Parts: sequence; structure tokens; C-alpha cells
Amino acid sequence: MGKAPVCAAVDWGTTNFRLWLMDVDGSVLAARQSAEGVRACLPDRFATVVEKHLETLHTPADLPVIVAGMAGARGAWQEARYLETPARLDALHEQAVRASRLPRDVAILPGVCQREKGREDVMRGEETQLAGASAQGMRAGVFCLPGTHSKWAWLEGGRLSDFRTFMTGELFALLSEHSVLSEMVAEGEGATSSASFTEAVSEMLASGAGLTGRLFSIRAAALVGSETAPDARARLSGLLIGAEVAAMREVLEVEPRVRLIANGPQAHAYEAALSLAGIQADILDGMDLVRQGLHQAALALWPERSSV
Amino acid sequence: MGKAPVCAAVDWGTTNFRLWLMDVDGSVLAARQSAEGVRACLPDRFATVVEKHLETLHTPADLPVIVAGMAGARGAWQEARYLETPARLDALHEQAVRASRLPRDVAILPGVCQREKGREDVMRGEETQLAGASAQGMRAGVFCLPGTHSKWAWLEGGRLSDFRTFMTGELFALLSEHSVLSEMVAEGEGATSSASFTEAVSEMLASGAGLTGRLFSIRAAALVGSETAPDARARLSGLLIGAEVAAMREVLEVEPRVRLIANGPQAHAYEAALSLAGIQADILDGMDLVRQGLHQAALALWPERSSV
Repeated sequence: MGKAPVCAAVDWGTTNFRLWLMDVDGSVLAARQSAEGVRACLPDRFATVVEKHLETLHTPADLPVIVAGMAGARGAWQEARYLETPARLDALHEQAVRASRLPRDVAILPGVCQREKGREDVMRGEETQLAGASAQGMRAGVFCLPGTHSKWAWLEGGRLSDFRTFMTGELFALLSEHSVLSEMVAEGEGATSSASFTEAVSEMLASGAGLTGRLFSIRAAALVGSETAPDARARLSGLLIGAEVAAMREVLEVEPRVRLIANGPQAHAYEAALSLAGIQADILDGMDLVRQGLHQAALALWPERSSV
Repeated sequence: MGKAPVCAAVDWGTTNFRLWLMDVDGSVLAARQSAEGVRACLPDRFATVVEKHLETLHTPADLPVIVAGMAGARGAWQEARYLETPARLDALHEQAVRASRLPRDVAILPGVCQREKGREDVMRGEETQLAGASAQGMRAGVFCLPGTHSKWAWLEGGRLSDFRTFMTGELFALLSEHSVLSEMVAEGEGATSSASFTEAVSEMLASGAGLTGRLFSIRAAALVGSETAPDARARLSGLLIGAEVAAMREVLEVEPRVRLIANGPQAHAYEAALSLAGIQADILDGMDLVRQGLHQAALALWPERSSV
């Protein structure tokens, strides 16, 4: 038993599409991945993209599909309105929207928002990773989810109580591609193990203010031609990640331990920066978590599938 | 007397060209301005541009020309190597380079750099404004020069002892033109007298850290559709200027008074932000100052012209 799929789970981000067929125990039976992100997808194409991948996997016509991520944004597949904090992570499915006019059942999970004036914030996709963590017993604590828009999230008793977004990844892209720093940063290796990275993080931790007053030093260091010019790319990365960690350290002082949902070089960079700030990081795999979150929601939505 | 020009003074920036014929007293006899900034000018075209404007003004063939700004950058007209801090502002002319192979005498003033590791910095053009201020008796104090790359400069006994660049203006342009905030910011009025501006500056002053964690609220506020969504453009401006002022306030506590070299809406924005930080600003005109700085250098380079 346990080899029949109970659902197709889809994580649909801005630039990536991922689909898994999962059995009742949460194991992956088959997987698909492509660059058909939400940004590249016209509103009337979402169903076609999913069906194409399901067909490739010879999926039964009645298998339900559960979706998380930007596919639920306004103007994407179908809007799944934001829940508000504090949000019960085991109840995301209760606010799922059903994609209309489809032969099979498709449920799109909502994102979560915060409305407090001056602290407005939104997420789509990360809440499902956090639901997966909560389902695995991590029902409280602080989570760091690096990315284009890095998220820091607080869980309390299985609820997402608060979160905050940092534009770290987007600023890195803007500054390295379109700014007066581009030329320097293009040449750097960006090794987050380098002294340049460590020094930049340490500068930001010593004085969390003044990011905008340090960025230009990357250009100036190249212009004044010092023999030991730092690795510009690593320095930019260090200044931006350092600014993020420095801002969060203020808030975290009583709980200097976070769960870091990341992998590869990004996980190493954040782990190093957190460590410099005296914060211990437990690294988790985001792909695994989002699957668990989707699986939990699917079983709640379609309990009859558990006995397939 | 005093109606004969003693020099042509040129302020040649990245995007603007300005030329004045000045008499021995520093009065302006004639002026030219164009968009022929250094960025748009090929290396072998600089002399031609200057001669064209001088011809229009029927300038004598032996009138010397004094130049400040990006025209002295490497790869521009002719490189005028950086002086290092502390730099005597009445001695910029001593390191001027002469443009070669020209019928008339052309001297290009150097910029100033700082080589201290991790605090590397450069300026070209602002040092001549500061020389003008020093020549007018403002030989000590803190100066704020807002712009694409805002400069804060310390003068001591007529020397430029220290300075620091903030990428405030460039970040505003990047974020308003190329980021996920573009759509929101394009719609705002950007009125720096608005409550959105004041609130954003105050947030940054309350906690100088965390700029990158506040930027995204501009997008989120639009997405959660609160009825009182702030003026996004004014908020972005307030966050960035607030970050700059917050970083500097730490340094300035013993001397909460600065000279602000700016005009128009930019002067109002910085004056308002400085005021929120408890810093008093005396506003000065940058164009007037750069002319005084150029004039002082010209008289020092060509003393015989004083008796024309």
C-alpha cells in the first residue's frame, strides 16, 4: 500500500514551478520541475501547465491538486486572499480557493499578511513551508527564510504570529546589475567564506545603521586602487546580509537561536553571518517543508483520499 | 574696472556642464549651461565642448580655464589624481593638471580620496564647493551635500579632514525605477512635506538599523489595500534620507548643526529630516560655492590675471 498518490502538490513561485505526486505518508512518488514561474505565466495558462506535467506523469484524472505560492496572487491563477497574523498554520486549507471550471479539484492556499500601519507585510509560499515545520513539531520559535525578499517569522503554538521582510536579495541584484557598483561586483567571486564577507558582516553588526553609507566604499576601494581591494561581490553580500542580521539581532536578544530554511551557498552565508552575531542556526530544507505543508493541507481538504 | 574676465570657471559633472566668465572680484560676467555631462562626452571631445561655449561668449583666446568635477576622473578629459584627506582646501590648485595640446591654459582640479581600509571614499567636485565655503570663512564644521551620492564632510582649519558618502540618491533611483516597489512609487507625489515622509524619517531615527526591512512595507501596504496607504514615493524618500541622517546623528551628537549645500525640494527634504533629528541646518547654494572655489584656484594659478 501507500504507493497510490493522494494528491499532486505544487509549489509555484515567481520564477519556478515544482510539482510532486505524494502518497498518504507524505513520500514523493514522482516529481517535476521547470522554469514556468508565475511571472512567465499568463492567467489562462496555469491550468494547462499543471495538466501538461500531470499528463507526463500519467496521473489519474481525478487526482486533486494542492497549490502554494505566487499562483494565488491577485492577477495570477486565482486570488487566494491573505490570512492575517496570527494565522493558524494547520488551517491554511480552510481559506483555500478552488480553481474554477476544471475537471479536477484544485485548491490554492492563501498567503499571510500583516496590516499594522508602517509594518505592513505579505508572504506567499513561505507560510506553507512554516506549516510544514509546524506539522513536524516545530510549533514555536524564530525562522529565517533568505531570498529575494528574506522573511523572518515568529511561530507561537503552531500559529504564525509575526513576520518581517527584508529586501536583501533584490537589493543585491539591483546593486550588482544596475548601480555604480556593478563593474566592481561583477569581478568579485562572492565567496561568503572570504575575509571580505566576514569583515562586511562585522561592520554592520558593530553599527547596524549606515548601510547606505558603506555601500559606496566598494566603488571607492576600487578607485583608490589599494593593493588589498576586497572581493567586492563578497563585500556587497556581507553588507546586505549583515544589515539584515544586525536589525534582527536587536529583536532576538532573548532567543539567539533560529531555524534557517535555506540550502547551498545561501545557507552557508546566513549561517556564517548569524554565527558572527552570536546566533545559532539549525538548517532546514525548504523544499521538504513546503511538501509537508502541502501534504497536510491536502489530507485536511480531501480526507477520503487517505483511504485510497 | 573689474569687467574683464580673469578666467572661465567650469563645473563639469556626470550629467551637467556649467561655465561662467568671472571677473577679479568673483562676479559672474556671463554663464553657459548644458546637458553635456562627462558621461555623454568622449575623451577627445572635452576641449571642443569648452571652446564652443567660449566662442559663443566671444572670449579672448588667452583666457585661462579652471575646471572642477568629473572631467578630472580617469578616462574623462585628463586624470587629476585624488588628494588625500586631510586636504588643504586653499591648495587644490597645486595639484591641478594642465590639459595638454591646447592653445589656451586649462587647469583641472583634483578630487579628494580617503584610503583607510573599509572606509575608502572619493569625491570629485564637492571639494571645490567646500573650498568655496572655506574661502568665505566657513573653515570648520560639518557639511551635508545631498545628491546621487550624498556626501558628509568635516572641515577643520580650512582642511577637509574626513568625509563619507551615502548612496541615497542612487538607491532612490534604483528602487523607484527597477524594483518591486516601482509601481507603487511611480504613483506617489513624493511630497517631502507629507505625513508619509515625516513618519518614514521618524521610523529610521527611532531605529537606524533595518532600512532593508522597511522598504518592503511600501509594496505590502499597497497589496493589503489599507485605505490610508501612504504616499509611497514620499515614504521611500523618507526611509532613505532617514537612514542617512540616522547614521550621521550618531556621529554628530556633540555638534548638532550642519551646513546644508542644496536647493529646491532636496534642500527642504534634508532640512526637514535633519530637524526631526534635532540637527539645525544652514542652507547654502552649491553653485555659488563652486564658483568661489574655482575663482580662488584661478587667482592662485594665474596671479598675473588679477591686474588685468
